[in-house]
Amino acid sequence: MDTRTGLPVVGMVGGGQLARMTHQAAIALGQSLRVLAAAPDDGAALVAADVHIGDHTDLDALRTFAKGCEVVTFDHEHVPQSHLVALAAEGVNVAPDAAALRYAQDKRAMRERLAELGVPVPRWAPAADREAVSALAAEVGWPVVVKAVSGGYDGRGVWVVGRDDELPATELIVEERVPLRRELSALVARSPFGQVAAFPVVETVQREGICVEVLAPAPDLDPELATCAQELAIRLATELGVVGLLAVELFDTGTGLLVNELAMRPHNSGHWTIEGARTSQFEQHLRAVLDYPLGDTAPTAPAVVMANLLGGESGGMSLDERLHHLFAADPGIKVHLYGKQPRPGRKIGHVTALGEDMAPTRERARRAARWLRDATWDEGAA
Amino acid sequence: MDTRTGLPVVGMVGGGQLARMTHQAAIALGQSLRVLAAAPDDGAALVAADVHIGDHTDLDALRTFAKGCEVVTFDHEHVPQSHLVALAAEGVNVAPDAAALRYAQDKRAMRERLAELGVPVPRWAPAADREAVSALAAEVGWPVVVKAVSGGYDGRGVWVVGRDDELPATELIVEERVPLRRELSALVARSPFGQVAAFPVVETVQREGICVEVLAPAPDLDPELATCAQELAIRLATELGVVGLLAVELFDTGTGLLVNELAMRPHNSGHWTIEGARTSQFEQHLRAVLDYPLGDTAPTAPAVVMANLLGGESGGMSLDERLHHLFAADPGIKVHLYGKQPRPGRKIGHVTALGEDMAPTRERARRAARWLRDATWDEGAA
Repeated sequence: MDTRTGLPVVGMVGGGQLARMTHQAAIALGQSLRVLAAAPDDGAALVAADVHIGDHTDLDALRTFAKGCEVVTFDHEHVPQSHLVALAAEGVNVAPDAAALRYAQDKRAMRERLAELGVPVPRWAPAADREAVSALAAEVGWPVVVKAVSGGYDGRGVWVVGRDDELPATELIVEERVPLRRELSALVARSPFGQVAAFPVVETVQREGICVEVLAPAPDLDPELATCAQELAIRLATELGVVGLLAVELFDTGTGLLVNELAMRPHNSGHWTIEGARTSQFEQHLRAVLDYPLGDTAPTAPAVVMANLLGGESGGMSLDERLHHLFAADPGIKVHLYGKQPRPGRKIGHVTALGEDMAPTRERARRAARWLRDATWDEGAA
Repeated sequence: MDTRTGLPVVGMVGGGQLARMTHQAAIALGQSLRVLAAAPDDGAALVAADVHIGDHTDLDALRTFAKGCEVVTFDHEHVPQSHLVALAAEGVNVAPDAAALRYAQDKRAMRERLAELGVPVPRWAPAADREAVSALAAEVGWPVVVKAVSGGYDGRGVWVVGRDDELPATELIVEERVPLRRELSALVARSPFGQVAAFPVVETVQREGICVEVLAPAPDLDPELATCAQELAIRLATELGVVGLLAVELFDTGTGLLVNELAMRPHNSGHWTIEGARTSQFEQHLRAVLDYPLGDTAPTAPAVVMANLLGGESGGMSLDERLHHLFAADPGIKVHLYGKQPRPGRKIGHVTALGEDMAPTRERARRAARWLRDATWDEGAA
């Protein structure tokens, strides 16, 4: 507890944009997020008052960080299991705990557990060697998808592999390349008490393995399928014992849903909730890990579109200048910058547009993201 | 400019809740508000990364603070005029500047300037002595209202004075006690470029001189009168050369509007905009002082009610426990706590309710504020 305010202290391991935006939400709840950042210029370290600099693989740094925190939670999945277990054994309240977080850290363990639960997933196999990959490909056809068992994010650690391609030199699983209509995401929160709350199901649009847009709610989604996705996410959060947020990334195959990935933290597919839902995913995560009753997940507008800002060519203009022009062109666009210098392909922020209809709202978000990337309005120039 | 992000640095003098909430808005714009706080446990100092501790009446502290800021702005009106003039002479970009801020610092200067502009105000006079007070009372009747020329806020510095009452020993003005139907507030922003943007006009409900509730938009307000109030605020912002926000507190007499007070900073009557308008007053203030184009001021719901949280009896429960109960009772209520220990009468936060109709929305906000104050739901117990 913070003796100055009488309110709890939440520690978040990792100082990226998720911690940065969680700190914003913490301020409203009377708190100040404690952040374990790798460097003083991490996005969250630039804006938070209570910053520790340290490595998330250093158990002593984690121990020192955790002292005085009601709960320790995460901006990423990269804290080693052994450290999570050690902290818990020493009385640190870790949320989600090691047993749950394992399924967001280890894709093989996740696939095995989902199979036990009878949850539909792509056809897959552990890929100890070339033969295992070829064996699955013999069933599902080339190319296949191979994934690093741990450590991947934002398209890293995932490869589409043909018959004659080299395999990456890391522990892998192999999966069928699912012919999919689109990708969806079902985001829920769960508290230690066992309360769960689901946000509307969204469509996530990927380019080269990176999420570029999120459409909320997912357009033209059969209401029964939406409910099915929410129920699946709630069931997984409960069965896996998740505390905090659970994002379930789904393939919509046109005939059903397959679970692609799990994340147990604020998720890119939930950034739209800052303005687009009555409770943002960041506030919801804090409420969940603190065992506060969860907030209302109702949308605030019929159509909400989030577009990621990727660093690009500057068109000779600074980010600050581009922001001026964007605000002049669209006074209603909401911008979130993460305190990062733009570099090509780097996620430096996101924009959110709210509207009555999806198509024009999506166009507004796209134009804003293009403009901030490279100071062009036209699709052709992008 | 912050060389780590390439984005501007805004400095805010004063570390209270207005700076705290402005910092939240700054984070989204890629910035981190620099705060000059009086003490390390000021609301904003608890949550911001770039905090200077110093006195706002200490010119050297102000000078040091201003170094490297694109613009210096304010959480209160208490920086002496001479210091504002000195900083500007040394090249500091102060917004609003001394000439404008004077009318928020000096009620006599404000009343004189409004008279020159032909803006309707209560009947008033300088009150150098007892005779001046009696002279106005002879015209308008006892009791009269006397106000400290400078330094007042939240009901302090304002007294209702009868024929036989002592006068406070400070520089005063005296005004008629206006028979009013209700109080309104018109909040606008103005940029150095001259762009202006008006928020919807709200009703402010006072108790013992302290704002307890804000109803947005003001219920049953004649649309012509609302437009008139917005035009008046825009005209004043322009005539007075305001940069940033201008809150115009108005008396609705039933037959017209009189200007009561001016504030040139984020204002309690604008807290509802955090969730209730497309652009919050805090973001708008930053956009204005940085000369960014202003944001959309449209409301996000038909009825928005903000209720201030005043410290009260705890009912044996900690604030944290009361928050648990409140969230269980109303998952849609939005809470903003300022990092202050509750003490009777102290403003420790606010709640916002959004809805379709004003009456039930107001009831939700009231109940939430009562519950957080003293753990009672009933009006009778308040």
